[in-house]
Amino acid sequence: MKITVINPNTSQSMTDHINRELAKIKREDTELEVTCPDRGPITIESAYDEAYAVPPTLELVQEANRKGQDAVILACFSDPGINAAKEISDIPVVGIEESTLHVASMLGNKFTILTTLKERVAAKENEVEECGLTSKLASVRPLEMTVAETDEEPERAQERIFEVAKKAIEEDGAEVFALGCAGMAGYAEPVEEKLGTVVLDPSSVALKITESIVDANLNQSKVGLFATPPEKEFKGYDL
Amino acid sequence: MKITVINPNTSQSMTDHINRELAKIKREDTELEVTCPDRGPITIESAYDEAYAVPPTLELVQEANRKGQDAVILACFSDPGINAAKEISDIPVVGIEESTLHVASMLGNKFTILTTLKERVAAKENEVEECGLTSKLASVRPLEMTVAETDEEPERAQERIFEVAKKAIEEDGAEVFALGCAGMAGYAEPVEEKLGTVVLDPSSVALKITESIVDANLNQSKVGLFATPPEKEFKGYDL
Amino acid sequence: MKITVINPNTSQSMTDHINRELAKIKREDTELEVTCPDRGPITIESAYDEAYAVPPTLELVQEANRKGQDAVILACFSDPGINAAKEISDIPVVGIEESTLHVASMLGNKFTILTTLKERVAAKENEVEECGLTSKLASVRPLEMTVAETDEEPERAQERIFEVAKKAIEEDGAEVFALGCAGMAGYAEPVEEKLGTVVLDPSSVALKITESIVDANLNQSKVGLFATPPEKEFKGYDL
Amino acid sequence: MKITVINPNTSQSMTDHINRELAKIKREDTELEVTCPDRGPITIESAYDEAYAVPPTLELVQEANRKGQDAVILACFSDPGINAAKEISDIPVVGIEESTLHVASMLGNKFTILTTLKERVAAKENEVEECGLTSKLASVRPLEMTVAETDEEPERAQERIFEVAKKAIEEDGAEVFALGCAGMAGYAEPVEEKLGTVVLDPSSVALKITESIVDANLNQSKVGLFATPPEKEFKGYDL
Amino acid sequence: MKITVINPNTSQSMTDHINRELAKIKREDTELEVTCPDRGPITIESAYDEAYAVPPTLELVQEANRKGQDAVILACFSDPGINAAKEISDIPVVGIEESTLHVASMLGNKFTILTTLKERVAAKENEVEECGLTSKLASVRPLEMTVAETDEEPERAQERIFEVAKKAIEEDGAEVFALGCAGMAGYAEPVEEKLGTVVLDPSSVALKITESIVDANLNQSKVGLFATPPEKEFKGYDL
Amino acid sequence: MKITVINPNTSQSMTDHINRELAKIKREDTELEVTCPDRGPITIESAYDEAYAVPPTLELVQEANRKGQDAVILACFSDPGINAAKEISDIPVVGIEESTLHVASMLGNKFTILTTLKERVAAKENEVEECGLTSKLASVRPLEMTVAETDEEPERAQERIFEVAKKAIEEDGAEVFALGCAGMAGYAEPVEEKLGTVVLDPSSVALKITESIVDANLNQSKVGLFATPPEKEFKGYDL
Repeated sequence: MKITVINPNTSQSMTDHINRELAKIKREDTELEVTCPDRGPITIESAYDEAYAVPPTLELVQEANRKGQDAVILACFSDPGINAAKEISDIPVVGIEESTLHVASMLGNKFTILTTLKERVAAKENEVEECGLTSKLASVRPLEMTVAETDEEPERAQERIFEVAKKAIEEDGAEVFALGCAGMAGYAEPVEEKLGTVVLDPSSVALKITESIVDANLNQSKVGLFATPPEKEFKGYDL
Repeated sequence: MKITVINPNTSQSMTDHINRELAKIKREDTELEVTCPDRGPITIESAYDEAYAVPPTLELVQEANRKGQDAVILACFSDPGINAAKEISDIPVVGIEESTLHVASMLGNKFTILTTLKERVAAKENEVEECGLTSKLASVRPLEMTVAETDEEPERAQERIFEVAKKAIEEDGAEVFALGCAGMAGYAEPVEEKLGTVVLDPSSVALKITESIVDANLNQSKVGLFATPPEKEFKGYDL
Repeated sequence: MKITVINPNTSQSMTDHINRELAKIKREDTELEVTCPDRGPITIESAYDEAYAVPPTLELVQEANRKGQDAVILACFSDPGINAAKEISDIPVVGIEESTLHVASMLGNKFTILTTLKERVAAKENEVEECGLTSKLASVRPLEMTVAETDEEPERAQERIFEVAKKAIEEDGAEVFALGCAGMAGYAEPVEEKLGTVVLDPSSVALKITESIVDANLNQSKVGLFATPPEKEFKGYDL
Repeated sequence: MKITVINPNTSQSMTDHINRELAKIKREDTELEVTCPDRGPITIESAYDEAYAVPPTLELVQEANRKGQDAVILACFSDPGINAAKEISDIPVVGIEESTLHVASMLGNKFTILTTLKERVAAKENEVEECGLTSKLASVRPLEMTVAETDEEPERAQERIFEVAKKAIEEDGAEVFALGCAGMAGYAEPVEEKLGTVVLDPSSVALKITESIVDANLNQSKVGLFATPPEKEFKGYDL
Repeated sequence: MKITVINPNTSQSMTDHINRELAKIKREDTELEVTCPDRGPITIESAYDEAYAVPPTLELVQEANRKGQDAVILACFSDPGINAAKEISDIPVVGIEESTLHVASMLGNKFTILTTLKERVAAKENEVEECGLTSKLASVRPLEMTVAETDEEPERAQERIFEVAKKAIEEDGAEVFALGCAGMAGYAEPVEEKLGTVVLDPSSVALKITESIVDANLNQSKVGLFATPPEKEFKGYDL
Repeated sequence: MKITVINPNTSQSMTDHINRELAKIKREDTELEVTCPDRGPITIESAYDEAYAVPPTLELVQEANRKGQDAVILACFSDPGINAAKEISDIPVVGIEESTLHVASMLGNKFTILTTLKERVAAKENEVEECGLTSKLASVRPLEMTVAETDEEPERAQERIFEVAKKAIEEDGAEVFALGCAGMAGYAEPVEEKLGTVVLDPSSVALKITESIVDANLNQSKVGLFATPPEKEFKGYDL
């Protein structure tokens, strides 16, 4: 099967990183195309960043449809533009946040999302609500490190993930963890071992779920929220 | 006070219509600037349309800030890009849906939103949830008329609004109505009279609430969800 | 427009205080009448106090209707008797708590109510639920000072408001604050400045929202919860 | 044990009726005192009626405390003044609605409340929410008969109760019924038999639960919502 | 009336203990039969333990029906098998958890359940949700003592109950307590006295509520969740 | 990978049927073992049936662990004993209901479960609540056909599934369907085609999700709800 993975920001290095990580775990019969837009924000840390990331991301979704791919993965934890992508796509579109949170909900009673800064907590909580999973949320906990800092100080980052997760087990009833930001990629395995409970790497979970969805010949419904939008004039665009 | 009203779609005729209607009800000391983007969809009927409407809308929000306006109103019932707009704005940003639904919640026990087509119901329900007002929602009811049809057949449109609203009173416990689409503008008063209960025209309600907010010197909080986004590179944009 | 503001307790000094504060911020074309009952509790700190405050308050609502006023504001943060007042009134009735909480819900993701004592927390939480806004509530936090103490020690009161609000930002995700008790009136501005986020003075917010509602010619619905009560015998009363 | 039953309206005939019905089912060792206020509304059908019924009801609660009774039952389905009554009482206060709904929640998956008119539905739904039992509510269904009509046409009333309850089983998933109004007293047994499922007479259920509570030596908590109110001046009252 | 109390585990000493405690508080006209299965786990501390405790418990429920008892109480705080028991029983079945939590909901604004170990907290929270009472739950707090430890060190157990409950009042808004485990039986009274608020012993509360239910001639509904199961083949059983 | 599929009832023909269906869609590298207990009910249609199906099902889960299988699927739509199975298993346990409902939640805004009889609706609703997905539930709709009838009249069954699903789209906002009973197996594809929206066959979905989970090396968390039960005496059992 042919799966397009779209990193909605414009960082080629992050796109390459996702490519390398997913290549390691993909099924043999899965052909991955990992890509990112050529315009828009270099990272996504606000609704404002998302607003500019979404249109070029949607164009990549359309391209994947045209090229006959079997599915699309949106590889940014906030699943930016996921509803619009499902509207315009004839092939399944899977968000790494939604798929990770639904899997987390089966692996434990409640999950905790680890995010970067305190300011992002509210946005994550709202995303969980949009997934319909608020009753499975133990907490959203910030590392209080920026993406840049997690990049520069990998050991401290891993230590912080462990500490914060440990506190979430003790104080919030967390049983499963979702690493809610690209800067934490690669820490799932070592932290899981040290912590003694499940730590999910969203891109990896999403790839596996997407392989399942393609395999089972499933697709998003078109009779309601994800109905194909009516054709219309878009001034200044050639869509 | 100086208020910028942004119609997020690119229809100049709808923008003119909003301008005329709000001019009738604005306070004497309110100076209105009603505008719309020069690129993007001509109407907004899907998440996909919203995706393309939001970036140029945000640019108009920034322009209103630069020009020293006192507040911004987003004049499309789905409040597209409202969170991003609040993030980047130093002056209050008010959505016509959020303000209408909060006012509706005070004027009756439960409200009903009237929308165009059945396919839009789920999106409206999710917007109510994002406003935190699901417990005040009686129902979302479609007229089963497209925007074009409501334009072409104003008498049938008004009759449909009345019929559907009446059913919502009888079957859903609706007490207050929000006309959830531009095509219904102008029907609030006649339907309210015939129906015997409150029918809200969202743009009008939003203007009055915004005048209050400016008058009371209020503004959105910047310590959480609406914190100013960090500066960063936007490839292909000169923001 | 002519607005009657009813302080539901029998404290003339608090009534005078409200009068002075609102006079400063009212629109020029607003004529205020601030009044209080001549029987009932001197302050309202329990459901029991409310029970005795409500009947004379309702009589003042009826008087405002008879006198041709344009709207009524109930100026006690627990909105005592609000539903009964809306039932018997042909002009809009606005509670300072409901209007403040709905505005707070637009200005930030979640709000915190500051109250006097720990014993009042549960009542405030239940009032938020009645407004349908539980999903927007960060927390109710007590100052652990009585009304008398906030009066006698204004500096300590202001300091406590700041400290408790700061903790609510850090621990509860609060973005907006409502000063949930008359004893805190006057502290909104200085605390807002020091805290760096929105602090709402309920009476002021309610006045501005009420001016909007009158201006927009809105009123509570009479087809459901606020339907005019059937006439009947009231033993021992001449209503 | 000595139990005071307060009918919060001023109808002596309804008070006598309650007395007769409860006398039939009380425990042998239960001494009943069924009483009603000498001022206030003759029936309770609105928040306005409740407002005037509550203060004299609270005085009867205080009298029951002074006389050394073991418990108080508030015998009106909307439990008017229940929180205030619990605040001022050293003996348990039980509302017929709260006790009936909690018992209903154990006897079936969901319950339906039958009320008189469509206008009362919203109030009943809010009362269920205040009891914390919304997730157990199948529906509130009106008979569309006034209290007067149920009195004058007992056969039609019983038939309506049966019809409406049957519809609630079929359409709402109702399993248990609460007769939510005094006018329906006496119909529980015949309707239960015809319907083939549980129909609760609130006064009877409340008496049995109150006997249990006294027997188990239980009482309302005084550390939070029902804390004894602080002493204070009540102008125009000698409380 | 004749009430069968089933201790679903196979500990004869715990069964005897329940018997002694309930004998002290039963009505004179109540005839108690306290029993336990002869196969299954000696204590119930997991869903796995429950799985093996339920079938023999159901057989005792059937026996109580055959013997003409008036009601059955399931005397383990997690109410194991309660829905199945209600399905197969023609006489009322009451769980000690459900009845205690519904009574707790009337005696205070919110309740806290005290349990043994942190690992049990999630299960208790889910049980509260199944009772439909999540909005009345202040918290579930573990003593961090095993059942064995509470048995061996009664003084420390009582002290822990007091400490943990005190913290729940201060931090969680708890007003009423349910002792959620057999090992805490006997501590309700002394802790209640020291704590100054209501502490419920579940078996005692359940007995009193069951006496009420029998007295009021109530029973579970058979039209929905608790409908009598269809007859069918059970391989390897002679049911 | 080696996956054990347990049909919790004792019907060998249904077990064979599941085996045939899953064999068609399994990955090439998946080795299936489809089995059922040798004692317990022949079908599962009540909590009572579940009670007897669970212990032998758990023994098969233990056997799968001992044999070195990679995962276990519980193949009955009510996921009987799922929590106990997760407690005692070192390999992942997946329920066909939980996995289907989580996938359904990604493929559309709301899903509808089709069940056999009206009496089963409440149980299905409660299972959705236990999965934490109530906000994604459009409705549970009964076919009003018994399992036997769906077997004997396959054409009428397929027609009923189509009719009921169509109604759920029109009246409940359903976008995705879960065939909530073994008797409907095999109808997903033809109904999906006729209906024009997603219809999920639970066993198939569960197999694909389980293959993903094994592939991603995931497992249930052992730090909370699914912690390994403490060892203890089980009278009359040799576990």
